[in-house]
Amino acid sequence: MEVNNVPLTKITAPQHLEQAKVLRLAAAVQAGLVETCNVPPADLFQMVYRVAPECMILDPNFGYVHRSSEACVIEIALLGGRTDGQKRALYQRVVELASEAGFRTDDIMIALSENAAIDWSIGHGLAYVDVAAGGK
Amino acid sequence: MEVNNVPLTKITAPQHLEQAKVLRLAAAVQAGLVETCNVPPADLFQMVYRVAPECMILDPNFGYVHRSSEACVIEIALLGGRTDGQKRALYQRVVELASEAGFRTDDIMIALSENAAIDWSIGHGLAYVDVAAGGK
Amino acid sequence: MEVNNVPLTKITAPQHLEQAKVLRLAAAVQAGLVETCNVPPADLFQMVYRVAPECMILDPNFGYVHRSSEACVIEIALLGGRTDGQKRALYQRVVELASEAGFRTDDIMIALSENAAIDWSIGHGLAYVDVAAGGK
Repeated sequence: MEVNNVPLTKITAPQHLEQAKVLRLAAAVQAGLVETCNVPPADLFQMVYRVAPECMILDPNFGYVHRSSEACVIEIALLGGRTDGQKRALYQRVVELASEAGFRTDDIMIALSENAAIDWSIGHGLAYVDVAAGGK
Repeated sequence: MEVNNVPLTKITAPQHLEQAKVLRLAAAVQAGLVETCNVPPADLFQMVYRVAPECMILDPNFGYVHRSSEACVIEIALLGGRTDGQKRALYQRVVELASEAGFRTDDIMIALSENAAIDWSIGHGLAYVDVAAGGK
Repeated sequence: MEVNNVPLTKITAPQHLEQAKVLRLAAAVQAGLVETCNVPPADLFQMVYRVAPECMILDPNFGYVHRSSEACVIEIALLGGRTDGQKRALYQRVVELASEAGFRTDDIMIALSENAAIDWSIGHGLAYVDVAAGGK
């Protein structure tokens, strides 16, 4: 299997953010993955968690960043194998697109985690690596 | 410590799914772990997150799978060391049991992540690896 | 970059727990990270998820631990590189502080996961490793 498939994105966003805006952020993340990490556009697996503002406990100023009450956290689990350059490009592109969607660039945090091809099953109880090897 | 303990399961399910059905899915995951990965039945740590349907953003057709509005995502963090064969058996068994519980096999996505024995504390501020080494 | 930055903490707590108490738990986690893992106090990134009691499916007695309906699960993603000793100290200190905050020591489960320096962007679409290398 090429190392380009099956990211799983989780976005945690405060409840007071308009849902349409959060969905634009989700779209920005997927577009960033497609453009920088060779993810097929239809390889789309995202969950959004809305929490009370007091459940987002983020330092307002750490790391030269000035966070507002609209700050969101994006976690992306993906197959190991992306280069550092791809990850840098991903961060930049997601935040560019989020900015176009109305977010301040301060308000986008991204954390990646990696696993292996055998660690995914996207349906029917099959390991995705076996499905991918056989076709699509 | 044997590599058989302490999975942490997270299930994200749409709000409109009946709670009893989601709990049957949780039971299917645990039974699958017990049957295929030597997890003790009482080694049960699961959290369920219910989100609005629009917060489950899943491509309806990617990867030869046709997802419905009842699609759920299961994340399992577990100790590194399971074989590829165990992971394949886990996917298959969880989905078989989920099917018996009323789910379409298209609607079950599973993603695994691994960590190390030292990465777990299940109570009292003790590393679980130390507790496990001393008895149970 | 020193291996001391950017933990991401997620706490899942039952809805019936008083919010102030959950926030004290969050503070205990951060203080534990600061005291045992050289995390700067302002390096604070936490999300709290409140779920219905039936969405916390935890064995009440596994592993010499007797969990109550107030049991919480803490997940911490952090840069690889902490020693086993630091992790043991982290568990102990978090639970000591949680106990001072009114929690039973049985009710605190902690699971760690590790990633790499390049896996973090805390704002502006920049890899945090690049920001950290350039200053702060």
